[in-house]
Amino acid sequence: MNRILLAGTIALALTSAASAEVLKENNMPLDIAVELAQGAVSTCAADGYNVSAAVVDRAGVVRALLRADNAGPHTVSAASQKAFTSVSARIPTSVMVENIQKNQGAAQLVAIDGFLVLAGGVPVKIGKETIGAIGVGGAPGGHLDEACANAAIAKVQDQLK
Amino acid sequence: MNRILLAGTIALALTSAASAEVLKENNMPLDIAVELAQGAVSTCAADGYNVSAAVVDRAGVVRALLRADNAGPHTVSAASQKAFTSVSARIPTSVMVENIQKNQGAAQLVAIDGFLVLAGGVPVKIGKETIGAIGVGGAPGGHLDEACANAAIAKVQDQLK
Amino acid sequence: MNRILLAGTIALALTSAASAEVLKENNMPLDIAVELAQGAVSTCAADGYNVSAAVVDRAGVVRALLRADNAGPHTVSAASQKAFTSVSARIPTSVMVENIQKNQGAAQLVAIDGFLVLAGGVPVKIGKETIGAIGVGGAPGGHLDEACANAAIAKVQDQLK
Amino acid sequence: MNRILLAGTIALALTSAASAEVLKENNMPLDIAVELAQGAVSTCAADGYNVSAAVVDRAGVVRALLRADNAGPHTVSAASQKAFTSVSARIPTSVMVENIQKNQGAAQLVAIDGFLVLAGGVPVKIGKETIGAIGVGGAPGGHLDEACANAAIAKVQDQLK
Amino acid sequence: MNRILLAGTIALALTSAASAEVLKENNMPLDIAVELAQGAVSTCAADGYNVSAAVVDRAGVVRALLRADNAGPHTVSAASQKAFTSVSARIPTSVMVENIQKNQGAAQLVAIDGFLVLAGGVPVKIGKETIGAIGVGGAPGGHLDEACANAAIAKVQDQLK
Amino acid sequence: MNRILLAGTIALALTSAASAEVLKENNMPLDIAVELAQGAVSTCAADGYNVSAAVVDRAGVVRALLRADNAGPHTVSAASQKAFTSVSARIPTSVMVENIQKNQGAAQLVAIDGFLVLAGGVPVKIGKETIGAIGVGGAPGGHLDEACANAAIAKVQDQLK
Amino acid sequence: MNRILLAGTIALALTSAASAEVLKENNMPLDIAVELAQGAVSTCAADGYNVSAAVVDRAGVVRALLRADNAGPHTVSAASQKAFTSVSARIPTSVMVENIQKNQGAAQLVAIDGFLVLAGGVPVKIGKETIGAIGVGGAPGGHLDEACANAAIAKVQDQLK
Amino acid sequence: MNRILLAGTIALALTSAASAEVLKENNMPLDIAVELAQGAVSTCAADGYNVSAAVVDRAGVVRALLRADNAGPHTVSAASQKAFTSVSARIPTSVMVENIQKNQGAAQLVAIDGFLVLAGGVPVKIGKETIGAIGVGGAPGGHLDEACANAAIAKVQDQLK
Repeated sequence: MNRILLAGTIALALTSAASAEVLKENNMPLDIAVELAQGAVSTCAADGYNVSAAVVDRAGVVRALLRADNAGPHTVSAASQKAFTSVSARIPTSVMVENIQKNQGAAQLVAIDGFLVLAGGVPVKIGKETIGAIGVGGAPGGHLDEACANAAIAKVQDQLK
Repeated sequence: MNRILLAGTIALALTSAASAEVLKENNMPLDIAVELAQGAVSTCAADGYNVSAAVVDRAGVVRALLRADNAGPHTVSAASQKAFTSVSARIPTSVMVENIQKNQGAAQLVAIDGFLVLAGGVPVKIGKETIGAIGVGGAPGGHLDEACANAAIAKVQDQLK
Repeated sequence: MNRILLAGTIALALTSAASAEVLKENNMPLDIAVELAQGAVSTCAADGYNVSAAVVDRAGVVRALLRADNAGPHTVSAASQKAFTSVSARIPTSVMVENIQKNQGAAQLVAIDGFLVLAGGVPVKIGKETIGAIGVGGAPGGHLDEACANAAIAKVQDQLK
Repeated sequence: MNRILLAGTIALALTSAASAEVLKENNMPLDIAVELAQGAVSTCAADGYNVSAAVVDRAGVVRALLRADNAGPHTVSAASQKAFTSVSARIPTSVMVENIQKNQGAAQLVAIDGFLVLAGGVPVKIGKETIGAIGVGGAPGGHLDEACANAAIAKVQDQLK
Repeated sequence: MNRILLAGTIALALTSAASAEVLKENNMPLDIAVELAQGAVSTCAADGYNVSAAVVDRAGVVRALLRADNAGPHTVSAASQKAFTSVSARIPTSVMVENIQKNQGAAQLVAIDGFLVLAGGVPVKIGKETIGAIGVGGAPGGHLDEACANAAIAKVQDQLK
Repeated sequence: MNRILLAGTIALALTSAASAEVLKENNMPLDIAVELAQGAVSTCAADGYNVSAAVVDRAGVVRALLRADNAGPHTVSAASQKAFTSVSARIPTSVMVENIQKNQGAAQLVAIDGFLVLAGGVPVKIGKETIGAIGVGGAPGGHLDEACANAAIAKVQDQLK
Repeated sequence: MNRILLAGTIALALTSAASAEVLKENNMPLDIAVELAQGAVSTCAADGYNVSAAVVDRAGVVRALLRADNAGPHTVSAASQKAFTSVSARIPTSVMVENIQKNQGAAQLVAIDGFLVLAGGVPVKIGKETIGAIGVGGAPGGHLDEACANAAIAKVQDQLK
Repeated sequence: MNRILLAGTIALALTSAASAEVLKENNMPLDIAVELAQGAVSTCAADGYNVSAAVVDRAGVVRALLRADNAGPHTVSAASQKAFTSVSARIPTSVMVENIQKNQGAAQLVAIDGFLVLAGGVPVKIGKETIGAIGVGGAPGGHLDEACANAAIAKVQDQLK
């Protein structure tokens, strides 16, 4: 049991210390998050649907969450999980739904912690960089939730730079 | 029950759409995370302690986690939770321990999801900006864990810019 | 990093402060909840089934829960989750089961926190307003659970006003 | 084992069916919830604190949640749990902290599911009826969080009727 | 690695197969459980307290749970956990609270899964055999919760045989 | 808000207090539980399979659990959950698997808390009364796990009276 | 109720105390774990995929975990769970995916605690003895994750003795 | 965003590939685990205490678990958690209790996942190498649980080599 000595010899050296650079990232601000959540809730309300809308930052942590009057209690976690799923996978959850239907070997994506693979989660991007996502839940069909999410993103598109 | 109409009138307008700017943030890269984790594990090993070291990014998500041979299974979550606690509170967990001892009204900080208020978690900063944290668990005393964390940060200090 | 100043400029103004009205809602009382739970347990008992029956308020929180002698331990959570699912979706869980069978894209509804998409959960309504739900579990088939739930609702129908 | 017959004899009769009345309740609307959350975030921002503010309805389910830029990830659950704790206990969490300090027999209140007994949660009332609560987390001291919560409530006070 | 062969040699023989007798136990029926829960809710209501009352069987599984109008959502789990704690420990939770105050080495009893060590949980016994327990939560003090639990037990005492 | 008065009028009277009888139940003793677990582990070992075997009482709480050398860590919860599922549903889990394959409307049985619907869980009965169950996990196929469970039950059959 | 006396008669004697031998096992060291995790992350990076790689010991506890820059937050648990699944089942998760597709009766394997049945988890073996596993998550397809895992194992193959 | 190229340059080289040796470990076999669990249950039974006894391997995974007739349901997790805590910390839980009483800065050890810091958990060692642990729960005092654990270890001491 000379593991302590052995452990002392671990030398996970970077080839060059100079090569390690801090990441420079864009991230979702509260201001845009609120516009997104409000845009989705009001778009869905105009269509007659009471929904929750959650906006997460690039790490999947909630920035803004609004639940319409009469939206059921489950919409809080449904919206949050759709947003988390979408920001982490970098694609709309509706695309993930399609992928699973084509490839049963991917079916267990749905078992990943925090994932909810239902249409209604859409990433928010600057160019190719995902800076957050919006998730919507409560309309009678994921495609309706997604339409509200997309409408909300369209309204803030010119601020995503 | 005319809530749907009412919901349509929510207008959470930003005073000026132009004021919403995307956040520009620094974040922990994998390269430095590995150096930090390795530095803490090897420093503690040199002192005869088998520990786990976890490095998280600014959102508290793990970037690197190493568990020394013979470090107990609980050290995985202990190290991770100390890192999460420290990055989210922006201060070393040892300071939080002191604060609770001075102010019993703060004792329930420990009940926050994911928090572990034991010495051994230290934020990693560029100036005043917290870009991540390192948590260490497994030494026979939190101050010993913290010493290994601090030694690891000292080694990468010149890359934090 | 002048986010603090920026945050000071958030102005999520309602178009008119006067438009914000407190919601006036109907909700499930304990008295009716007990009648519902008892009605379901006794109806199922008359059919030879030992079940649990849970009644939740409009937010999905339990008001009354009864478990028949010899009903298995899993029926407590099964009944509660069916009631939660139904009150939050505003439709019987049997309809949700059918919807999923028609539309595989909705299959992951079942992954929402607290949801159990098995027949046996039925909303309790005053007109179009859902004020709670009853969930039944333990009969050898969800349609049998649902029949007991419906029988219980029928008995209290004239009090739902 | 003649329990099935016995179960058939349960007769939990209400003394008078006529006495069972549906509850008439006031509840937190989204509009006021947003004003409250925004009020707390901006008040704290003016004081230099980056916080999350969560507003829940009378059942403890989130209506609105905003996280300021640079507020740590733990503030999301801290704010939500303070709001839940306060709305369910009908008193400010700061009062619960005091009660526990006076009466150690109450210390385990903190072990109740979803409870976080730290100052910063305040009920929102119409007269004596609690219709929701606001929870704030992220300032360097619960009394500072509470001050932002109280300031937010003061701004909407005339709408609480 | 000849473990499979070795495993074949395990012979956990009972000294005498004849000595293994099936347990003959008394257990809480639904009928008495409902009387107990109703007794506690109505006693507390008469004192002006809105509470939840949970009755569990000897294994700690819920038999009956009633939540009074206006009792907060946390009382559901508080009552259930007090009942579980009391039935499993075979003593009132108020006694456990006292024991912890006398013996700090027992303080971590509170960390056991499902335990809530607050006054208000009382075992229901036939002679020395614990057949279930009642837990009450929501009154402004555990001793008040306990008084309602005891009053409810007194009413059914003559049926406990 | 005169709910407190109203609550005072709840009168869930049993038709006759005399009709409430304490349940007389048979339950799994430790002695037989150990024989069952050992029987399943050794039968599977003789077939070359390293398994865990869990025996639960009639409420689904573990009485005995044995994990063979080289049985993977997941077998502990797999065996326990199969036993819980089987004791609560009163039928072998293999029958539940078949039922789900015939009736897709029952597919979500698998989402019930603590359920694992894989062959290998078998109830232990005295006549028609279920007094416990055994669950086995780790063989390369649920039917193989079930065979070991059945062999173990056969060995103790004459004690089940 | 003479169970205490009865319990005293339990005598689970081993046929021969001499037959009980302590297990001699090989296990994954930190050094090889780091090589494996780094090999998988860098192989995937060369292919343009940002992944997490987790290496667990024979009991399924994490030894090393690395998350590439830009790999989503879900990859941490996805990689860890694939590794756990593979080490406990002793086969690649891709084989489990195939088995489930052939045998619907095995579909609920996916419901076992900690299991994630998606390609990308591969056991690490010395001869027939599984000493750990590697799990990879984040590439756009489980077969791509698995390729990186296999490449990493190939690099350390000669040390596995 | 040239992180992919950068990631390609990670070179966590071990100083010498030859230095990475697979760990050679001793571990708890089922045979001894059963003897230990039985020894603790029967010793406590002789003293009049109904307990659960859990034996874990060196990674903290259960090998054997026995619950005495009339031991409460909470003793299953209490015994298991004490064993996990002790094997991972390498010391008896009674020593951890003392350490916390001396050093309040260590109080939050109790918040580590899976830990239960109550007397009754004792490591099982071969020389200085911890190969498992036994945890006992259910006696009216942790020191009584610990005495049963120690008695059980004494009986198998000569096999620990």
